Amino acid sequence: MRDEKIIVTGDIISHHARTKLQERGVEIDAIAEIVYALQHPYAPNLTMAECVESVDAVLIKREIQHAILVGIELDVLAEEGRLSEPLLSLITGDEGLFGVDETIALGSVFGFGSIAVTSFGYLDKEKTGIIRELDRSTDQVNTFLDDLVCSIAANASARLAHRLRDRDEATTVVIRKPEDEELIG
Amino acid sequence: MRDEKIIVTGDIISHHARTKLQERGVEIDAIAEIVYALQHPYAPNLTMAECVESVDAVLIKREIQHAILVGIELDVLAEEGRLSEPLLSLITGDEGLFGVDETIALGSVFGFGSIAVTSFGYLDKEKTGIIRELDRSTDQVNTFLDDLVCSIAANASARLAHRLRDRDEATTVVIRKPEDEELIG
Amino acid sequence: MRDEKIIVTGDIISHHARTKLQERGVEIDAIAEIVYALQHPYAPNLTMAECVESVDAVLIKREIQHAILVGIELDVLAEEGRLSEPLLSLITGDEGLFGVDETIALGSVFGFGSIAVTSFGYLDKEKTGIIRELDRSTDQVNTFLDDLVCSIAANASARLAHRLRDRDEATTVVIRKPEDEELIG
Amino acid sequence: MRDEKIIVTGDIISHHARTKLQERGVEIDAIAEIVYALQHPYAPNLTMAECVESVDAVLIKREIQHAILVGIELDVLAEEGRLSEPLLSLITGDEGLFGVDETIALGSVFGFGSIAVTSFGYLDKEKTGIIRELDRSTDQVNTFLDDLVCSIAANASARLAHRLRDRDEATTVVIRKPEDEELIG
Repeated sequence: MRDEKIIVTGDIISHHARTKLQERGVEIDAIAEIVYALQHPYAPNLTMAECVESVDAVLIKREIQHAILVGIELDVLAEEGRLSEPLLSLITGDEGLFGVDETIALGSVFGFGSIAVTSFGYLDKEKTGIIRELDRSTDQVNTFLDDLVCSIAANASARLAHRLRDRDEATTVVIRKPEDEELIG
Repeated sequence: MRDEKIIVTGDIISHHARTKLQERGVEIDAIAEIVYALQHPYAPNLTMAECVESVDAVLIKREIQHAILVGIELDVLAEEGRLSEPLLSLITGDEGLFGVDETIALGSVFGFGSIAVTSFGYLDKEKTGIIRELDRSTDQVNTFLDDLVCSIAANASARLAHRLRDRDEATTVVIRKPEDEELIG
Repeated sequence: MRDEKIIVTGDIISHHARTKLQERGVEIDAIAEIVYALQHPYAPNLTMAECVESVDAVLIKREIQHAILVGIELDVLAEEGRLSEPLLSLITGDEGLFGVDETIALGSVFGFGSIAVTSFGYLDKEKTGIIRELDRSTDQVNTFLDDLVCSIAANASARLAHRLRDRDEATTVVIRKPEDEELIG
Repeated sequence: MRDEKIIVTGDIISHHARTKLQERGVEIDAIAEIVYALQHPYAPNLTMAECVESVDAVLIKREIQHAILVGIELDVLAEEGRLSEPLLSLITGDEGLFGVDETIALGSVFGFGSIAVTSFGYLDKEKTGIIRELDRSTDQVNTFLDDLVCSIAANASARLAHRLRDRDEATTVVIRKPEDEELIG
């Protein structure tokens, strides 16, 4: 059905992704707190503001916004019993061997490198902060949402790790070869 | 909602995954033909029966069955206009930068190694056989299904490549160290 | 240089992969202990023998044997100072943002599904048992090896999770549709 | 050996990665030509300058620079017979089922989304332009390099696809909600 293609602009998607996160009870600050807990040991001077900024930056990525829209949609449809069986039971029961929730979340994790992947795996198992609340919630289906939050937090954390390194290096005196100069990110 | 966990047995999921593929117009033989086209150049004696057998073997994997259930469900919900915006437009329009369909399909491709990943990428771009029919269909939304078929075909193809190698090696005389003997797959 | 292609049989590779693991101080039992720790909470009756069997099964996979050969080779070459700079410093220093070690290990993790990926991430951060010993070793470069062990343990653990589920289901009475019967793994 | 950690600054790595590509016969323009061929059908006004710019931008990423350093090092070591067997034969013979080269290249492809992954798979199979030259070379081992070039080209191509979309949207009149305004990439 490519002919009747509709263009949905990035800012409409961005707006909906952020709104849906909030509607499902996930505030940016709650994700930022997980980022802070992950990165603070390596960066003692890290501020919550930097963590919030990093979460915001991650939420700009199309890949992540799309994952959020799909994941939350499936959670809501499952909650309202509007999915067919056996998928409905797989999702409402958060079946242990059902991995599509991790797969969708992982899709956007790869974008931030292998540190993000390992952090995602760690958060998915440890379930700290808001992730645990989502996982334990009895009045909402969060099968996809808790993995999405792991993904956003892992990405924001990995992004920070790279940024902090870049900042450190910028302060170290290095003889730069001219051809590199303009290439440093 | 883990407490009220429902166990959906593997054979129920397997049955539904295969049935839904058929309901959406994808026969095992059509996938096997793609596998044959991919592997025949490397294995002149390859038979269609071996390709069908490999597709069947791939469809036993939980990871793939789950991906099929989720992907086809989203296609059907989009077709019936039962998804919220802007997700509905993203899926019905098969938006070029929307990658969750590839992500879900890729999740099960990794299971068959890097050859499967490259074959998936190739099929996703070349869209041979049934994949092209699905991509061009005007009476069905196949945003997720065409990627799922790429995934199943790529997996069955990679699986065959490994099996054929194993068979070749089994026929070559090799002095095997006892401790390996029982480990040969 | 495809013309002069040499076929290295699977059992030679298998033998070398297992031998190199041992030479670098990694016994199958040490990996099996990590598997046991990961799966025991979900399977009280789990035995160490089953964990050893699962590690052995994982080590049969070509993808993993190849990863082991490449990873350990790079560790040894770095140890002996036989790599060029700056790669040598990146590997000997186990540079935090250097992710090729995780990437190579992850390549074989995907093969065992998303549970394996999350377990890998968890182990890579928690570094339990032999993984910690490798990470802290001062007389060996284990930049790649510790990730490889995380990968093998995560894979063997995920494989067990699926097998145990299959075993449970086999004991539950289910009316199976004939067409599924022969497809159940 | 974390204690004696050496910090290798990003610009040193960046310089070496680009230099090694050149030393092995891969010019930025040759990669840009592949990017142009991939994206031109979707963007008629695309210029080679934009493709070169995109390749340069991709080469800034640490993940890719690290992959280049490791991959080319292994090619050179294999070429000089300085790897142990059976790894040496696996790499010099570019063994079909050896997938660590694709794995390392894929590690940096994920960073640019699922479009990059499918483009990578396509290039890895089609082997256009410089990729084919590398694949057919008889005086150099390019087992890892050809996959690295597929990766860089796929990433630069996917990056362009997203940029071109952003540019299109910027020119379309959209009522933006204030809270989105600063978030548009």
